[in-house]
Amino acid sequence: MAEIKHVTIIGVGLIGGSIGKVLRKDAVRVSGVGRRESSLKAALKVGAIDDAHLDCSEPVATSDLVILATPVGTFEKYFRQIKPLLKRGAIVTDVGSTKGEVVRSARKVWGSGKDNPFIGSHPMAGNENKGPQHATITLLKDALCIITPLAKTPKAKVQRVVNFWKNLGMQTAQMTPAAHDLSAARVSHLPHLISAAMMMLPADGDLEVAATGFRDMTRLAGGDPEMWRDIVATNRKPIIKAIDELLKAGTKLRTLIDTGNEKAVEKFLAKAKTRRDTKIS
Amino acid sequence: MAEIKHVTIIGVGLIGGSIGKVLRKDAVRVSGVGRRESSLKAALKVGAIDDAHLDCSEPVATSDLVILATPVGTFEKYFRQIKPLLKRGAIVTDVGSTKGEVVRSARKVWGSGKDNPFIGSHPMAGNENKGPQHATITLLKDALCIITPLAKTPKAKVQRVVNFWKNLGMQTAQMTPAAHDLSAARVSHLPHLISAAMMMLPADGDLEVAATGFRDMTRLAGGDPEMWRDIVATNRKPIIKAIDELLKAGTKLRTLIDTGNEKAVEKFLAKAKTRRDTKIS
Repeated sequence: MAEIKHVTIIGVGLIGGSIGKVLRKDAVRVSGVGRRESSLKAALKVGAIDDAHLDCSEPVATSDLVILATPVGTFEKYFRQIKPLLKRGAIVTDVGSTKGEVVRSARKVWGSGKDNPFIGSHPMAGNENKGPQHATITLLKDALCIITPLAKTPKAKVQRVVNFWKNLGMQTAQMTPAAHDLSAARVSHLPHLISAAMMMLPADGDLEVAATGFRDMTRLAGGDPEMWRDIVATNRKPIIKAIDELLKAGTKLRTLIDTGNEKAVEKFLAKAKTRRDTKIS
Repeated sequence: MAEIKHVTIIGVGLIGGSIGKVLRKDAVRVSGVGRRESSLKAALKVGAIDDAHLDCSEPVATSDLVILATPVGTFEKYFRQIKPLLKRGAIVTDVGSTKGEVVRSARKVWGSGKDNPFIGSHPMAGNENKGPQHATITLLKDALCIITPLAKTPKAKVQRVVNFWKNLGMQTAQMTPAAHDLSAARVSHLPHLISAAMMMLPADGDLEVAATGFRDMTRLAGGDPEMWRDIVATNRKPIIKAIDELLKAGTKLRTLIDTGNEKAVEKFLAKAKTRRDTKIS
């Protein structure tokens, strides 16, 4: 990590803290910014950061990279705060689960030219835990990080972000923000919402016969409601598209079952099985 | 298992084979009936049965208990076959995943009186594997078996079936066939169908960003299409009710997201999380 000597992480929770831990092992100075003294103290205690700040001004001014790891809805506010502070050549990235709205906010603040310091990232790692006390150096390892550069972002700058995540042990891939958000809606956000809906359908008595299948299908429903509210709020159009796709598929399936078209039901299930068996490891 | 000395299992696959293995450890004679010599040979080889038969006549005549472990769609045919063969006081049960249609078939063949030898069972155990070679004595252990007696089935007879499953290490509960089938539609059959639908929604490129959440949500889609076609075919009305409930919930959620009602989205997610955290272990 030759060029990146000082990183500021705004929002030192599970992901921010895990990034900090790996960076510090690599002798990078890590400053943590947070709203609550208690989380910052916890982050210091577990060795996720070198120094803690309630205000980002001081650490951002000397950082080569600033990482936003707060809820996506807060990004525009932070972009405006750090804009006048950033040192020349510094890069700003994030760990947000949606990218379209994030990139729109960055464009509003910095424009669409090659000098926009923001390059969106979505490190796809996490678990049910919250807070820096759960941060580990293995959380990001071998997971995929999607990077969504602007059309005009200089290749060399993109490469620095790619290398940054690779040095943390991650795989990387590049997508446009729109492609990322529709894919995420289909394979992550819709599954989350449906998992919650499935959890609410049965009466209490029905749950007596719930087995491992139901447990698997509803695991996502245990996720943090605030975080998911934010994800939904910043990815509305792709999520609605995905919901419509599912409602359409559900309605079609309903017709097949209602008309007793057993052959078509079996064909549909066989197709899904083949796809699951070959595409998902 | 004082009273049950000889059991015939029709259909010696994963479940039938696992039942056979436990019974044989308990010195119960187990006869296996199947359509294919190869499966019967495999069942003999792994010690799931004592003797193998392509026709059920001979073993059924001396059995205290006959267990149907073939696809539910074949039951009525077997009921008619075994009716003239059953010894006095013998009980017939099954391992089918739906109960309404099964009980209707039993009523057609034996009537609704106290002499109907059939008491439906649904041992809720299984995994992705098929065939007697995967049978284990631990498959059923501690899992739940739902028993669905007819209104007129003598209590003592029901108790024999309860004891039978308890001796195999299972928990038991009693429900009406209709209650069982609606519960199963909500917590098992609908989840299965939606898991398959979820698997078919994304484009190939979307799967690049699929992570553990998607893997969990689509695990059920890997199930055997023939078996699930049969389950769907024998539980159409409850499954359609459950699909309608989900389509309604999905449509409501779509409106909340489309109108930007973030508070209501968060409330819905928080409710689902609380229910998941408290009701599912």
